[in-house]
Amino acid sequence: MSNPALPAYRDVAAAARRIAAYATTTPVMTSRTTDEAFGAKVYFKCENFQRMGAFKFRGAMNALLQFSEEQKTAGVVAYSSGNHAQAIALAARLLSIPATIVMPSDAPTAKMAATRGYGATVVEYDRYTEDREQIGCDLAERHGMTLIPPYDHPHIIAGQGTAVKELLEEIGELDALFVPLGGGGLLAGSSLAARQLAPACRIFGVEPEAGNDGQQSFHSGRIVHIDTPGTIADGAQTQHLGEYTFPIIRKKVDDILTVSDAELIEAMRFFAERMKLVVEPTGCLGFAAARRERLTGKRIGIVISGGNVDMRRFAELLSS
Amino acid sequence: MSNPALPAYRDVAAAARRIAAYATTTPVMTSRTTDEAFGAKVYFKCENFQRMGAFKFRGAMNALLQFSEEQKTAGVVAYSSGNHAQAIALAARLLSIPATIVMPSDAPTAKMAATRGYGATVVEYDRYTEDREQIGCDLAERHGMTLIPPYDHPHIIAGQGTAVKELLEEIGELDALFVPLGGGGLLAGSSLAARQLAPACRIFGVEPEAGNDGQQSFHSGRIVHIDTPGTIADGAQTQHLGEYTFPIIRKKVDDILTVSDAELIEAMRFFAERMKLVVEPTGCLGFAAARRERLTGKRIGIVISGGNVDMRRFAELLSS
Repeated sequence: MSNPALPAYRDVAAAARRIAAYATTTPVMTSRTTDEAFGAKVYFKCENFQRMGAFKFRGAMNALLQFSEEQKTAGVVAYSSGNHAQAIALAARLLSIPATIVMPSDAPTAKMAATRGYGATVVEYDRYTEDREQIGCDLAERHGMTLIPPYDHPHIIAGQGTAVKELLEEIGELDALFVPLGGGGLLAGSSLAARQLAPACRIFGVEPEAGNDGQQSFHSGRIVHIDTPGTIADGAQTQHLGEYTFPIIRKKVDDILTVSDAELIEAMRFFAERMKLVVEPTGCLGFAAARRERLTGKRIGIVISGGNVDMRRFAELLSS
Repeated sequence: MSNPALPAYRDVAAAARRIAAYATTTPVMTSRTTDEAFGAKVYFKCENFQRMGAFKFRGAMNALLQFSEEQKTAGVVAYSSGNHAQAIALAARLLSIPATIVMPSDAPTAKMAATRGYGATVVEYDRYTEDREQIGCDLAERHGMTLIPPYDHPHIIAGQGTAVKELLEEIGELDALFVPLGGGGLLAGSSLAARQLAPACRIFGVEPEAGNDGQQSFHSGRIVHIDTPGTIADGAQTQHLGEYTFPIIRKKVDDILTVSDAELIEAMRFFAERMKLVVEPTGCLGFAAARRERLTGKRIGIVISGGNVDMRRFAELLSS
């Protein structure tokens, strides 16, 4: 696709109306400790409290709610080892749509169980020898299923934008907004919402240092592909931005920042110790970057994208 | 004191007005997962989001706001190794009252640092050879300071009752309410609020199995003293109820339940994994007991009393 029809703010607004009866309007939290430390007013949009534990539910629900009767009958297919899998599985269950999720056979047992728990069929593949996109496409073609990709889809982007729409409608204008960046669904959607509702707000995408393809793409003007990055931010281990997400990000976002895994762990510990919140490593990206900036006197928005982290892993990271 | 003037609901209402400008109106959280598991509607009053991380701030603030000018000048003294120390220290700082906190010399460094961080003077004692109550009383007498005990004080009880007052005003009547029980400040205050605002609500205090002095006292009709119990619920390691808390609890509460440390850990893991909340072991008491009851179709309130747990300890418990 060289010239896709990009989603716009009106699609975010339509998504918000569409998913209202299903998604949680997540709380915006503040912390006196944080505000004192920054000398600023910081608003955390807590998508770790979203259904299934991450913002991904918004996009999945928005996509599935637009299925035709024929699509509903044939079902949905998705490939993901993470939050997108559970988001599609839950959204499909709520709408009684059959769902097939393609997951690596070495995915955490808990994640497979959770996905099956939502009633989805799990198709396993070998991540070293097989191509999940190909398996997904084959399934879609053979059974007439609709493939919903994890980020590069107008309905996914529009759905993800509803979180920042809620944030800005609740707390008003912001000086800066920090959003985790993986494949760019959340950042693209957030920037559509922020440009419309807080035009003066500076918008920053934040990705792991080890996987800065977004930053490279943003500055070079073309989609840069990298190998799967080694980072604890498993939700941001994407190899490239998408045909839909990249042009929106390039046009609407002010800059892409990166943070180290050590900074993610520090942020995760701060959330747990001082704010009593469980946040997954990817969910810490925005805050980890904001902590480095000089924000005195400003109004700052930070998207906490999710809270799905294996408890043993969480414990390990907290005590590291 | 054989016949103390017990606080009543009007004191809780007055406390709510008094502390309104200082305390956080903490969020009431719900969880679809929990509701489905119970077949009930469960409301969590999240005092882990209270200032300094626990409900204790409410009582401390209510007590210090009633100091005379003379008392303010001479200062406040408190003995505690836990949340009461930090609550008094923070409340005193906000009101520019000098505070002295008597803490065991082997208290966690982080807690001592936090207490000093609020500007309080820390007086250390040896918990094996010295009596903290005696040290507190001596300090009070020698310097004209006012001693504020951790739970057995009408102003403390009235202040703690404001959390359940907020809960019931926000969500309406309940069928049952589960409240952590240590010395009884929170339970006594909560029962004053619940009996007034939700007369039909069954009220349960919950304490650790290993320290069931409250249960024994409730059933025998006299205050039973025990040795310091061995339990991970460090906020409930009290040896006896108080002259003020016991008669209120005995009159207003329906029953006292106990839970094991293993059940507390399970509840703590549930909070972290499914609800993305950091809750200290003592804060898990209410939920741990509620999980055992048959609550189908009911409206249940659960007080999460606090979230102050050392991160290493938290990590250990999560992975145990």
